[in-house]
Amino acid sequence: MSEYKVLGRDIPRIDGAPKASGDAKYTADFHLPGTLCGRILRSRHPHARILNLDTQKAEKLPGVKAVISSKNTPHIYYGVTIFDQVLFDPEKVRYLGDEIAAVAATDADVAEEALSLIEVEYEELPAVFDPLEAMKPDAPLVHEDSGQYASTFDVKGRTGNVACRTWFGCGDVEKGFAESDEVFEHTFSTQQNHQTYLEPHASLAQPDGRDGLTVWSSTQGVFNLQALVAKVWALPMTKVRVIGSIVGGGFGGKKPRADMYAAGLALRSGKPVLLQFTRDEDFIAGLPRHPTTTKIRTGVNRDGRIMAREAKLDYDTGAYADHGPAIAAGGAFYARGVYRVPNVSAEAYTVYTNKPISGAFRGYGAPQSIFAGDSQMDIIARELDIDPIDLRRLNAMDHGDSLVNGQKLNEVWLKKTLDSAARHADWDGKPLSSGNGKRRGRGAASGMHVSGGLSSSANVKVMDDGTVQVSSGVIEIGAGQITMAAMVAAEELGVSVDDVRVVSADTDATPFEYYTAASRVTYNVGNVVRLAAEDAKRQLVERAAHVLEVPAGDLAVADKKVFMPGAPERSMTFARLSKAKGPKGGGPILGRGVFEAQGPPINVDCIDGNPRPGVATMTFCTHIAEVEVDEETGEVEVLRLICSHDVGQIINLGGIIGQLQGGVTQGLGYALIEEVVYSGGVIENPSLVDYKVPNILDVPPIVHDFIEEPEPTGPFGAKGFSEAVLVPTAAAIANAVEDAIGVRVKDLPITPEKVLKGLAGCGKTPMGWCFGQD
Amino acid sequence: MSEYKVLGRDIPRIDGAPKASGDAKYTADFHLPGTLCGRILRSRHPHARILNLDTQKAEKLPGVKAVISSKNTPHIYYGVTIFDQVLFDPEKVRYLGDEIAAVAATDADVAEEALSLIEVEYEELPAVFDPLEAMKPDAPLVHEDSGQYASTFDVKGRTGNVACRTWFGCGDVEKGFAESDEVFEHTFSTQQNHQTYLEPHASLAQPDGRDGLTVWSSTQGVFNLQALVAKVWALPMTKVRVIGSIVGGGFGGKKPRADMYAAGLALRSGKPVLLQFTRDEDFIAGLPRHPTTTKIRTGVNRDGRIMAREAKLDYDTGAYADHGPAIAAGGAFYARGVYRVPNVSAEAYTVYTNKPISGAFRGYGAPQSIFAGDSQMDIIARELDIDPIDLRRLNAMDHGDSLVNGQKLNEVWLKKTLDSAARHADWDGKPLSSGNGKRRGRGAASGMHVSGGLSSSANVKVMDDGTVQVSSGVIEIGAGQITMAAMVAAEELGVSVDDVRVVSADTDATPFEYYTAASRVTYNVGNVVRLAAEDAKRQLVERAAHVLEVPAGDLAVADKKVFMPGAPERSMTFARLSKAKGPKGGGPILGRGVFEAQGPPINVDCIDGNPRPGVATMTFCTHIAEVEVDEETGEVEVLRLICSHDVGQIINLGGIIGQLQGGVTQGLGYALIEEVVYSGGVIENPSLVDYKVPNILDVPPIVHDFIEEPEPTGPFGAKGFSEAVLVPTAAAIANAVEDAIGVRVKDLPITPEKVLKGLAGCGKTPMGWCFGQD
Repeated sequence: MSEYKVLGRDIPRIDGAPKASGDAKYTADFHLPGTLCGRILRSRHPHARILNLDTQKAEKLPGVKAVISSKNTPHIYYGVTIFDQVLFDPEKVRYLGDEIAAVAATDADVAEEALSLIEVEYEELPAVFDPLEAMKPDAPLVHEDSGQYASTFDVKGRTGNVACRTWFGCGDVEKGFAESDEVFEHTFSTQQNHQTYLEPHASLAQPDGRDGLTVWSSTQGVFNLQALVAKVWALPMTKVRVIGSIVGGGFGGKKPRADMYAAGLALRSGKPVLLQFTRDEDFIAGLPRHPTTTKIRTGVNRDGRIMAREAKLDYDTGAYADHGPAIAAGGAFYARGVYRVPNVSAEAYTVYTNKPISGAFRGYGAPQSIFAGDSQMDIIARELDIDPIDLRRLNAMDHGDSLVNGQKLNEVWLKKTLDSAARHADWDGKPLSSGNGKRRGRGAASGMHVSGGLSSSANVKVMDDGTVQVSSGVIEIGAGQITMAAMVAAEELGVSVDDVRVVSADTDATPFEYYTAASRVTYNVGNVVRLAAEDAKRQLVERAAHVLEVPAGDLAVADKKVFMPGAPERSMTFARLSKAKGPKGGGPILGRGVFEAQGPPINVDCIDGNPRPGVATMTFCTHIAEVEVDEETGEVEVLRLICSHDVGQIINLGGIIGQLQGGVTQGLGYALIEEVVYSGGVIENPSLVDYKVPNILDVPPIVHDFIEEPEPTGPFGAKGFSEAVLVPTAAAIANAVEDAIGVRVKDLPITPEKVLKGLAGCGKTPMGWCFGQD
Repeated sequence: MSEYKVLGRDIPRIDGAPKASGDAKYTADFHLPGTLCGRILRSRHPHARILNLDTQKAEKLPGVKAVISSKNTPHIYYGVTIFDQVLFDPEKVRYLGDEIAAVAATDADVAEEALSLIEVEYEELPAVFDPLEAMKPDAPLVHEDSGQYASTFDVKGRTGNVACRTWFGCGDVEKGFAESDEVFEHTFSTQQNHQTYLEPHASLAQPDGRDGLTVWSSTQGVFNLQALVAKVWALPMTKVRVIGSIVGGGFGGKKPRADMYAAGLALRSGKPVLLQFTRDEDFIAGLPRHPTTTKIRTGVNRDGRIMAREAKLDYDTGAYADHGPAIAAGGAFYARGVYRVPNVSAEAYTVYTNKPISGAFRGYGAPQSIFAGDSQMDIIARELDIDPIDLRRLNAMDHGDSLVNGQKLNEVWLKKTLDSAARHADWDGKPLSSGNGKRRGRGAASGMHVSGGLSSSANVKVMDDGTVQVSSGVIEIGAGQITMAAMVAAEELGVSVDDVRVVSADTDATPFEYYTAASRVTYNVGNVVRLAAEDAKRQLVERAAHVLEVPAGDLAVADKKVFMPGAPERSMTFARLSKAKGPKGGGPILGRGVFEAQGPPINVDCIDGNPRPGVATMTFCTHIAEVEVDEETGEVEVLRLICSHDVGQIINLGGIIGQLQGGVTQGLGYALIEEVVYSGGVIENPSLVDYKVPNILDVPPIVHDFIEEPEPTGPFGAKGFSEAVLVPTAAAIANAVEDAIGVRVKDLPITPEKVLKGLAGCGKTPMGWCFGQD
């Protein structure tokens, strides 16, 4: 029996019914009178100098209300890590899709026609598409002059097309290798995959008649977007309001891409402008996952203890840095895996190419590095003839161990996930029985992901009738964030979830909050909502004590009342208390919470002089995949996925199961199916017809196994896990495939073609990486 | 040279340009897709029993999406002072206009047709329209059973049609009269006038797909409206969001009248519903000023010193109490005038009649009582042969005097207004010279009005670029409230007004605030914005001190920077500070202000057991009117109005001049022109064609004379004065008319007919009051 009244139950999502019924209005469903259609003209070349740009014909087309280009817009550099982007670069285009101009017109046909009337004279330049090629000294430069860009990251590592070098390490890696009995070195590669949220990027901007505007956006962070729109249009932030629309999926990709252009077109036309990406545009101009190569070298003792690990990671960030250096830093951070490796050196290079921009996607560097590291773990286990789970247990981090950044973790529940997953899988180290031309196998992998970070604030108000309003700047992107906030407030105040209204994601309405990202919402926002609710409760009790003339310590709170247990007449409803006076007077009951995720500072040599906070908390997990491989077709069918996760206290049981199923499915797609296919700088499959994601038939039974060990710093012991869920999936499946057929695929996705080539001996993928054996 | 950088200047209103350009969107300008038209069916009888109500035909009419009536809605009693109203009373109608049913349909024509299809069978009842008749024992009862209503006021004084008796007094009035040399007794009466805001009541309600809704309203208080909509529809407040639209004028009258019906129609139809009153409907169902009679008896010494005052006030509240008892209490409070009267007894009766509901209108009881009391002051002066201004000076309240409720005022600037107004008028006590068939005269009157009350809260945030966001629940109703808030924040933080964004009037977005009413916004909201800005400034300085490693006390704030005077390198911009860490960590700079207007408790025998807070602060004023009366036509032309006001520190010079001009013009209309004319229970002039208000040609030169004595408890010494501006105008004009032609009109408005009758001897108005002489 749980000690909680609300937490741990399966509560229907607050945003669920309107989404299911169609009542929910997404950005493109808004109808503001006189709304114009916005469209962007994009480069047709992956790399070219702009010799001439003429928008006059477009401007004269009846129905065209605004045309913006480098000729009439500020050239203000912006970026997440390196300020290497402008609205429109007057000099050149760096990828097929780079913004040349944008128009707003009375309808889509006119807008499209206007785009066709814009004349651009290009001088094509040699382009580079492969990050390894791009790092060569004679490679064409995507960005000529690194000196022009400011940066939130130190760019001292920058040379040529290397935007940034990031590094994590500990111990003495040379010494570690010297002390090792065996050293394993492999190179793994991962593909680009796209978030494929159902709703493409959409932004609606409405001028306010006073040189300012309101932007409704499918975004993961309204305050970050507000700052960016203000910056690029040289407006004070007071002029920009951003309201988070209902978001049709984010997964890290709903960062500003359409908003700056919608905003500018609205400012210039004086009319509301809706700019919604088409699906192919979203593939070209969205921010999918970085393709990577990871060379990983691991030294072990004969008994399996890992002594040293060295990794070199190359992150293809495309034409602009965006989150690249930070994600590559994540990759370097996670390259040590979940293991107690005393000597580590992991360096990651973020490399410019003439390809679309890569960005943040659930996992933020961890899926790539854990795929490499935990694939290699099974290779090592096989070589040393140790059971793969035993090898992991032997090296697993435990309570009190430190991360690669030197940060000590008091609690590490990794071993519990290993044990629990193995138990659910009836793991005995022996291959699964196979038959009828298909061979079965299973594989395990363990991962981790940070949860939480940065500061948060929230308000909790008790209204006149005793119901409760929670105000948080966080945006719901489909993972149940606002239901979580309501549940936390309800639990703390002793009210029902129905008694709580959550106001969120409006720069005018809600206290500051960072992105819905980094698995930080349950942890950070949960904490701050709880603190605000506590504050409101304290005020309620203080007032009741004052009016009832009893010590506050004698009072209890439940059912929207403050009461003295055992004395029913000593009781006041929240409604009455909201209007009563306390020792300090009357006025509304307004609780406030402020929280800053703590962690020791991390020093990373790439990062600028300021020490960065370490991780707030960490969540660990182990997945076991059971697969069946058809040796004739090369097809891999996943039969079952056992997912054991250290999740802390569960807030919403239905929500966490949903996150697990969705995230594991995304991991399955990453492992087996999804890939943005390029031919040079051209995406060959920019549609949901050609770009495949798992459908319901691809998803096997998922065993969800939640290890509920309360996180001491989390709200009621909760923490985030929504990124961790896909981190080890690809490695577990790759390990299972090798278990089944003896083929080691080190290049995601594990396609039938690669499996067949592996079965046939040794093959080469177009990326040039060996799979099968090496 | 002012010590302030922002205050006291004439700053263009933040809301001014969009209102002038037409960009401002009022409630009826919104376009939500699928919005239905709402209409209310109103009683055609002033008093009738409802025998039968059949809405079936209306429901079946194509295009009708919802019909609500007493048959399908909650019967929950609500009210401001007495809970005597329901959405639809199933039993009877109490005035011509009482709500019977409401419909929502695809357009206005269908809605009107639907209304015509609703069948109502009435049994007409005897009605009462005159409050004096209504108080007689055998009068028809407007409300049969007083026991059924809860009340925020004690209704122990209630008998028959008297809704409530309220009383204020001090000293021993019998003793006072016994000690007087002469006793004067007169009866004055005032008409009903209407706020005639340009925008009639309008409400737009949109269901949220989750049993809740958002209401956009032309309202003076979003939080009060939220509570009311939730109450009458039996919803938790969490289900109701209210957003204040741009308000096309309020003056006290924009209290909930349309919103409850728009909300219900939206909930029942599942569609957005716009309900906008027509102009005649706004006359019938708005909340205009109470018509009153005031019998006033004043005892004076031979030297003019007032010894005693007794007053009996009758307030015709119409069919429901609404604010009536509180306004009548205001009338009783102000019946003592601005004078040091030691013995006072003033009782006010709020009386039900079968007429439309009276409500709050700029002045809240003061205009009626000051008209009576300060008209009588001139009668007394004439009888005693004392200059009227000298008589006022002799009796004027001064620093340290107490109000009738026993509350001591440390500062009273009344005498300064008397002296200053007299100086501006070249007052010498002699009649103005007259000629050419027209006679000139002048008259003075003094008044006061409360400023401020109740509690307030606000937030001030420093954004990433150093600009500032103020968040307050207050709604701008056209008096410059949000510009005031921006100026106060700008002054406190040392930024420009352009650097400040004010977010206001949204129950989801902004901290709790009461109505924009009671001249409380500059005082209360100003105070709380200042406190919040101070809090933000303190945080900025604390961070700068931490980073710069200097004592906080050595730092100054200006130009969006914290700096060490004389050491330019020791400086940090607000922008940098917003992202820096202080001794307690980082996160957003968010200042918070909470303020409760203070004053000693008042005990009024009508008011319930809880002592009420006294006035926060009081503003005093003197008006001198110069008039010319045409003895042939009886027409009164006001030649000049000298308005001397104790306003505290001026915030926005342009704003205060605007308020003065508007308020004095409204007072002029009240004195001379405006009247809601009844024939029984029927309004005869419910249109702006037939109901006259002053136009530009009626407005004389207004001399604005601001006495800027800082109010110690106000923000930078400011206080409110927007109601005081019309309080003494009618008495000043009446006194000037008597000065010109010797006719004393004691019944507002002072129409040519009454003037001519006065010149002809003694006449009777339809109300039965003698004017001319008595």
